[in-house]
Amino acid sequence: MPVLVMKFGGTSVATTDRIRRAAKRVGVEVAKGYDVIVIVSAMSGETNKLVGLVGETSPLYDAREYDAVVSSGENVTAGLMALTLQEMDVPARSWQGWQVPVKTTSAHSAARIEDIPPDNITAKFAEGMRVAVVAGFQGISPEGRITTLGRGGSDTTAVAFAAAFDAERCDIYTDVDGVYTTDPRICDKARRLDRIAFEEMLELASLGAKVLQTRSVELAMRYNVKLRVLSSFEEQSDDAGTLVCAEEEIMESNVVNGIAYSRDEAKMTLISVADRPGIAAAIFGPLSEAGVNVDMIVQNISEEGRTDMTFSCPTDQVLRAEKALQEAKERGDINYHDLVADTNVAKVSAVGIGMRSQSGVAARMFRTLSDEGVNIKVIATSEIKISVLIDRKYMELAVQALHDAFELDKSA
Amino acid sequence: MPVLVMKFGGTSVATTDRIRRAAKRVGVEVAKGYDVIVIVSAMSGETNKLVGLVGETSPLYDAREYDAVVSSGENVTAGLMALTLQEMDVPARSWQGWQVPVKTTSAHSAARIEDIPPDNITAKFAEGMRVAVVAGFQGISPEGRITTLGRGGSDTTAVAFAAAFDAERCDIYTDVDGVYTTDPRICDKARRLDRIAFEEMLELASLGAKVLQTRSVELAMRYNVKLRVLSSFEEQSDDAGTLVCAEEEIMESNVVNGIAYSRDEAKMTLISVADRPGIAAAIFGPLSEAGVNVDMIVQNISEEGRTDMTFSCPTDQVLRAEKALQEAKERGDINYHDLVADTNVAKVSAVGIGMRSQSGVAARMFRTLSDEGVNIKVIATSEIKISVLIDRKYMELAVQALHDAFELDKSA
Repeated sequence: MPVLVMKFGGTSVATTDRIRRAAKRVGVEVAKGYDVIVIVSAMSGETNKLVGLVGETSPLYDAREYDAVVSSGENVTAGLMALTLQEMDVPARSWQGWQVPVKTTSAHSAARIEDIPPDNITAKFAEGMRVAVVAGFQGISPEGRITTLGRGGSDTTAVAFAAAFDAERCDIYTDVDGVYTTDPRICDKARRLDRIAFEEMLELASLGAKVLQTRSVELAMRYNVKLRVLSSFEEQSDDAGTLVCAEEEIMESNVVNGIAYSRDEAKMTLISVADRPGIAAAIFGPLSEAGVNVDMIVQNISEEGRTDMTFSCPTDQVLRAEKALQEAKERGDINYHDLVADTNVAKVSAVGIGMRSQSGVAARMFRTLSDEGVNIKVIATSEIKISVLIDRKYMELAVQALHDAFELDKSA
Repeated sequence: MPVLVMKFGGTSVATTDRIRRAAKRVGVEVAKGYDVIVIVSAMSGETNKLVGLVGETSPLYDAREYDAVVSSGENVTAGLMALTLQEMDVPARSWQGWQVPVKTTSAHSAARIEDIPPDNITAKFAEGMRVAVVAGFQGISPEGRITTLGRGGSDTTAVAFAAAFDAERCDIYTDVDGVYTTDPRICDKARRLDRIAFEEMLELASLGAKVLQTRSVELAMRYNVKLRVLSSFEEQSDDAGTLVCAEEEIMESNVVNGIAYSRDEAKMTLISVADRPGIAAAIFGPLSEAGVNVDMIVQNISEEGRTDMTFSCPTDQVLRAEKALQEAKERGDINYHDLVADTNVAKVSAVGIGMRSQSGVAARMFRTLSDEGVNIKVIATSEIKISVLIDRKYMELAVQALHDAFELDKSA
């Protein structure tokens, strides 16, 4: 029988009633003839509670023990989901990561899945079991210790199972009903996308769209797993939610499919840096060592051997960046007149695979912002993305204007 | 290095502060030179919470899933305890049942430990680890599923580890400071015993003394594991608590060492039963099949082919007993005029290995009760125990009078 993977996040299994609701949805797919692998998160709030207990116990914890503690929330949900399915007369059992086994690296709290031998679960399907309920987020290291994949890791578990079992699809049930062209809280014309390409989803995820964990999208792209994002709180039709899939499976696409934004960016400018070959490395090396995630970089035209260097980083890393640069200056590695941090900025990005084949997207974006009187402070582009840093007060205006300009309210 | 097993119950690990307190005690034993195996229960209240979730989900649950869910509480405590010890610079790690492995039967929720191969933990001790923290109450079945040993099973886990590792002693840390001659809430002369024999502890445990799980005492007796019961809430000296040990290790002993009581007994009388060979089997067979735990049995002298048959059972099984007997009567298997249940009784027992060598104990017990005007309804005796059923209103009086009569306030 064809295999379907269904993943339910923490809010979808927050109570025994919600677990029952999710189980009913599983029952519908079983009735269609699928053998189903259900991946569950911990009940909403449980993982935070366990993380809190570890924090109270040991500020600088042993990640192996951390993993042993925090993985227990998923085990509880897996057992409860299996019991609920059994109550509905659906043959089901639970599996903890080590029972499958989900083999991972030894990088505790941030482990990567290396292999999921399908034999044990496949044998149970052959015996008539219809649903394997698997505790998400966890695995087992080569040393036999419990590992976890990092927060949001259950998405990655789901995609990895879909790949290992050659599943027809991987349905991610969550508290939103799909992927939107932009945040509906900011732009009331935001439209749910029927389909979105892996590459676009990856850009949106790394720009802060919280729908899917970035690693899970990477994995889905590599193994060409069809991912569907849909709500566990609404009645579902067969084409509900958003399908994240390969570019080839999207017949028509707008040139831009999403407008993303981030409030948590700061713009930092080193004024009048003594310009010389290797100066970029001298600046960004110490920042990287200090753990500062530099995103956009712009260097002004150099005059008389001096230049201004501007970059963006998360606002909560500004102090760390200032310290690292000050120390580099004191060591004599770099020389600058002043360092100015502007935390009143926001990043707005347009994402679309259509940019590859269609020119003029950047020009239209800049003209749109200019028409609205929004000054662009920094620009960065990739093959399928254009990002700008602007004053934060214009952020909502910019998102709405770009959504209109690229006609995102209309499907292709 | 010699091995010591230390077990901490739910109230002793109820918060991270209490876990720290327990860990300090472990540190003291490590400093003495012991390699320590710590067995932990779930944090107080956690197991009940998990049992509640299973109950909400599935009234007639699959015991395999029940075990997978309820065992998670111990895993959390094990990780937190290992982290706490590491914070104190004591080399420690946690082990879940399947990691040791604690091999059990497949009788889910009431599994028995079959084998604990010591190799994995011994190898870590050899590498310099000083404390193995093991999640109590759980194991793994031959099928690779998680099992639990039944409520209170962590005591049994502790004794089984002590046997498997040939430990010098098994210390059970709990919320009382030892085993008492009787319940101090009922008798203010109750005295903590320095030592008690396995057989006596076994009788007291099965009579309802909640200090130790009966199975753990049986196991300790079989493998001659020295068990010490002591409080985790008081500063400890080397001779704190009560040592449960073989009879040979107790130099002097009172003839009676404990007075136990139970409020939850009912007396049931079948009036005017047609007496014939095999009548006892015809009565107690159906009761056993109905799951009624019959304790004391008395048959009156038979007159004219008819007799009265009296037995005791837990009060919450009275309805079940009545139904089973009524059905046996309807089938024609037994014949009686009436069935009378008396739920206003209590059982009081005197326990002591001294009874084996000293006669007159029963006589002294009956005389004492008679002097207090307490009527005895049923008597049952074993080699080291005499139990009587009396009116419940006399229970406290009887316990106090017997405690005085056998001079339990004075040590031997």
